[in-house]
Amino acid sequence: MPEAVETMDGWYCLHDLRTINWTAWKQATDSERQAAISEFQDLVEKWEGVEEARNGSHSVYSILGHKADLFLMILRPTMKELAEIELEFNKSKLAEFTAPTYSYVSVVELSKYMAKEGENPEESPSVKARLKPRLPKWEHMCFYPMDKRREGNDNWYMLPMDDRRKLMYEHGLTGRKYAGKVRQIITGSMGFDDWEWSVTLFAHDVLDLKKLVYEMRFDEVSARYAEFGAFYVGNVLLKDNIPSFLHV
Amino acid sequence: MPEAVETMDGWYCLHDLRTINWTAWKQATDSERQAAISEFQDLVEKWEGVEEARNGSHSVYSILGHKADLFLMILRPTMKELAEIELEFNKSKLAEFTAPTYSYVSVVELSKYMAKEGENPEESPSVKARLKPRLPKWEHMCFYPMDKRREGNDNWYMLPMDDRRKLMYEHGLTGRKYAGKVRQIITGSMGFDDWEWSVTLFAHDVLDLKKLVYEMRFDEVSARYAEFGAFYVGNVLLKDNIPSFLHV
Amino acid sequence: MPEAVETMDGWYCLHDLRTINWTAWKQATDSERQAAISEFQDLVEKWEGVEEARNGSHSVYSILGHKADLFLMILRPTMKELAEIELEFNKSKLAEFTAPTYSYVSVVELSKYMAKEGENPEESPSVKARLKPRLPKWEHMCFYPMDKRREGNDNWYMLPMDDRRKLMYEHGLTGRKYAGKVRQIITGSMGFDDWEWSVTLFAHDVLDLKKLVYEMRFDEVSARYAEFGAFYVGNVLLKDNIPSFLHV
Amino acid sequence: MPEAVETMDGWYCLHDLRTINWTAWKQATDSERQAAISEFQDLVEKWEGVEEARNGSHSVYSILGHKADLFLMILRPTMKELAEIELEFNKSKLAEFTAPTYSYVSVVELSKYMAKEGENPEESPSVKARLKPRLPKWEHMCFYPMDKRREGNDNWYMLPMDDRRKLMYEHGLTGRKYAGKVRQIITGSMGFDDWEWSVTLFAHDVLDLKKLVYEMRFDEVSARYAEFGAFYVGNVLLKDNIPSFLHV
Amino acid sequence: MPEAVETMDGWYCLHDLRTINWTAWKQATDSERQAAISEFQDLVEKWEGVEEARNGSHSVYSILGHKADLFLMILRPTMKELAEIELEFNKSKLAEFTAPTYSYVSVVELSKYMAKEGENPEESPSVKARLKPRLPKWEHMCFYPMDKRREGNDNWYMLPMDDRRKLMYEHGLTGRKYAGKVRQIITGSMGFDDWEWSVTLFAHDVLDLKKLVYEMRFDEVSARYAEFGAFYVGNVLLKDNIPSFLHV
Repeated sequence: MPEAVETMDGWYCLHDLRTINWTAWKQATDSERQAAISEFQDLVEKWEGVEEARNGSHSVYSILGHKADLFLMILRPTMKELAEIELEFNKSKLAEFTAPTYSYVSVVELSKYMAKEGENPEESPSVKARLKPRLPKWEHMCFYPMDKRREGNDNWYMLPMDDRRKLMYEHGLTGRKYAGKVRQIITGSMGFDDWEWSVTLFAHDVLDLKKLVYEMRFDEVSARYAEFGAFYVGNVLLKDNIPSFLHV
Repeated sequence: MPEAVETMDGWYCLHDLRTINWTAWKQATDSERQAAISEFQDLVEKWEGVEEARNGSHSVYSILGHKADLFLMILRPTMKELAEIELEFNKSKLAEFTAPTYSYVSVVELSKYMAKEGENPEESPSVKARLKPRLPKWEHMCFYPMDKRREGNDNWYMLPMDDRRKLMYEHGLTGRKYAGKVRQIITGSMGFDDWEWSVTLFAHDVLDLKKLVYEMRFDEVSARYAEFGAFYVGNVLLKDNIPSFLHV
Repeated sequence: MPEAVETMDGWYCLHDLRTINWTAWKQATDSERQAAISEFQDLVEKWEGVEEARNGSHSVYSILGHKADLFLMILRPTMKELAEIELEFNKSKLAEFTAPTYSYVSVVELSKYMAKEGENPEESPSVKARLKPRLPKWEHMCFYPMDKRREGNDNWYMLPMDDRRKLMYEHGLTGRKYAGKVRQIITGSMGFDDWEWSVTLFAHDVLDLKKLVYEMRFDEVSARYAEFGAFYVGNVLLKDNIPSFLHV
Repeated sequence: MPEAVETMDGWYCLHDLRTINWTAWKQATDSERQAAISEFQDLVEKWEGVEEARNGSHSVYSILGHKADLFLMILRPTMKELAEIELEFNKSKLAEFTAPTYSYVSVVELSKYMAKEGENPEESPSVKARLKPRLPKWEHMCFYPMDKRREGNDNWYMLPMDDRRKLMYEHGLTGRKYAGKVRQIITGSMGFDDWEWSVTLFAHDVLDLKKLVYEMRFDEVSARYAEFGAFYVGNVLLKDNIPSFLHV
Repeated sequence: MPEAVETMDGWYCLHDLRTINWTAWKQATDSERQAAISEFQDLVEKWEGVEEARNGSHSVYSILGHKADLFLMILRPTMKELAEIELEFNKSKLAEFTAPTYSYVSVVELSKYMAKEGENPEESPSVKARLKPRLPKWEHMCFYPMDKRREGNDNWYMLPMDDRRKLMYEHGLTGRKYAGKVRQIITGSMGFDDWEWSVTLFAHDVLDLKKLVYEMRFDEVSARYAEFGAFYVGNVLLKDNIPSFLHV
């Protein structure tokens, strides 16, 4: 029986995607809209405080296309805090003008495929930092969930550990080419959500997102063993730009 | 023709998942909301009485993400009682502010794969207790339905009994590592719902849910033979916390 | 080219599944609700007259879970009569408080796999009765549509007639164990609906539904060649119990 | 590389399926309903004029089950005319009480698999007539879209022309058994809609629809190479019967 | 590990598909409708200015069938401009009477499969023009997303570069037969949307769209390696025809 590689787990993660009901939003009064915007900016400001205190992190993007308008990604030390943030947003004024279209519940995850024997990577400061990351607020972001395939001769979970390690190593080399250009947050979600992992990529140049995903598609680990869910791409939505984004 | 292993069946089980329409809920008057909350707490209290009398059991959780807000899991000796509870909730005030998003109809099930010859496990007191379990109210819960695969060379139902027994035995060993940390309720649903089984896991530490599901994915019985539906993860919602959960 | 076995076809069949909009139902006035209930009971009474005259049959069940609340199964000699009944229900008062969630159009079907040479089973009185059955009003019912698989090496329609006959014969043996406990109505729906057949099972003990479906899953004909749609399970809803079911 | 058989293409075809919102329809005033019915009958009358002038054809059926109530099938010489008819119906009074549930855009198509060498079937008067057919108004109709499979060893588009010709020839023999009983309209839709072809069958005896589809399922071309979409079955709705169909 | 072919990327692309709520549109006042139409025509006029200045391009079509009514295809140098255009349309008066049904986010893409060694095709003026194309306003258009298959023995991403080049070359020959008749815009969308590419075809004769897609289906690269999403077909909607299209 193939051995499961151990994982290291960090902060819990909620991706929360919503569409905006623009017709209802326009029908609201100016003061309702202003109240909704201020309340949402206050929320983001509160999250910024948490981020400053290194107790969590977050990112807000606007999504292109019909699948969503608003994208929130929230990291916190506990699942309970994530639930509280979701509940607080659900009860907010702005939420009355939105409808949830997708969400993802997971936890920041690093695998130990590359760990050297006798070494405990969890004690490494850089690993600790990667498990509790400060999310980038770079210009562009893409997010998608994925599985490792279990089909006929393409069954990841039946591969010997060494084969999986080798494939992951090659995959890592592809990723490393984009160092400094693309920031990648991997979260694990078995038992938490419908896919096994989520991938969130941040970039200054949106084309780097496509290039990275494209190039990785030819890695054997993706070509033979990856199943992908929906892809969401967005532009950063900074707190100060919320009013103009929502201005009607 | 492979022989079907016998199953032992206990209490009937309804998983009932709902989203809350927060906008409508906020538009209700204070007294409507108070009435809805009290009525729901009374329902839960009635269920607690049934549980005390060992005539059934239940658990209430709040779910993370857009797939549901409220999770009810109800066990009763008959399918008719389950229907009555569902009907009573449907007619309640709170239900007016919710929409059903998923449900699952099944019966608590234990297989006889591990039974020794000449032994009748149904007479064992521990088996009896497991067929009519008191559901945990632990901090975290995850729920998902599943099938055994019937595809090409990966066809569970074409495997000889001994192969299935061996695979289930290994699988059981993985589960046993989490004794005391994760409580697992398996229900069978052939003829009752769209998947063949449901799995509900309870844990004090939510990470143990992920670890268990992750580790089991490498068991051959999962790697080659399991198909999974949607996963729902939640935090316990005790009766006394219902008002603050619903406070707007 | 494999030979198609002949089928015998009886009454046409409509499965009609609806959810109830309980919020709208509670908002109706007492007299509206009373009128809706009486009109529906009158419809059922009319159907009972048809059943007495042996010109058709019907069954009404309440469904557990979110997929439906109300289940109507109607048999009639012509497709036109089915359409008239559906139209009459659609125009009724009660229908205003329901939404259709699923339906199935088919015809009661028996195959001639077991027919002896030189014999014409259609002349047998027992076969005639089975083609125009009086539907049970037993306590429990489950309904699901199904296909025979056509995939790679598991292609039912490429099997020689003798292999299909042998597999169907074994399958029949499993069914026969439940004689008196489970009544089974098979309908064919090629050209009429999305799946190839529908199965409706009636039982006094709901557990027998699960046991039968479970045991049959190990028959090679199911294990290798069956694809299943959604499963609906319900409790009988007798005409006299309609008012209490709908009482709010 | 397998050679693509040439096709002959005739009139463009729109299948347009709608459900009726009976609750809204009942809430309309008598005169609104009367206006909606008259306007729709006028539309059908206009289409009849086009049909008389051999500039197109149409059929109207009522569909059984929840997937649709109303079925329009329209043939015209250009795609632009189809769009105009759809737009005209969308702007009509009756459309306000309907919701589109499915549609299909295609063109009447005949393949040249059976063409003899040196022969140009497009010059045959019978072929010309079949490319611009007058749609039957027979009692029953069934409609479904389909693909030819491209999976592993069952890849239609990788078969040599001669194998495809042989399989289509056998398939044609099955169809020919139903001459006079079932009228078949095949339309091609690559580039126009989600499936590759649509099949619309008309019959006086609805059972012949099932028998034909059932028997063809055992043809190798269907058994190994066909993928089917949803099936819709209906009863003819003649212009004079529209008022009683819609009477509430 | 197979080598990824390099791509050349041009303008970013948004496909935006909407249905029109005709009932709400008819309920609006004449002046509301007039305002909505004028505002939309002004938008299109603004886009025409951008096109004249060679800073982007666009096309507007009306779609047949229930999947959409309105089709916008917008090209711009940056993802941010696309988001601004989507946002501006979402906030417009006409948008209040529409609902988004599909969208696609991608970037105009050319592969280097045919590039000769030592040559840099990106410096070729014709390549530059094709990466920043002026979209045709031809009579007909079809649009669909697609993937390259990764299944068992049909795994595009595991093929050696030379095999892929050969298959793409043959595919190109098929396309070349339609030069002057069909204009083809390929966009890449890995990391941006749910499929890997989108194809938008423009034609004067709508039948050429079907013929091209049909003929290409027999190219091995499609037969064995292509997976297709939904197909949308439409007629051009010129700015001056918007009022009559929307006239009620």
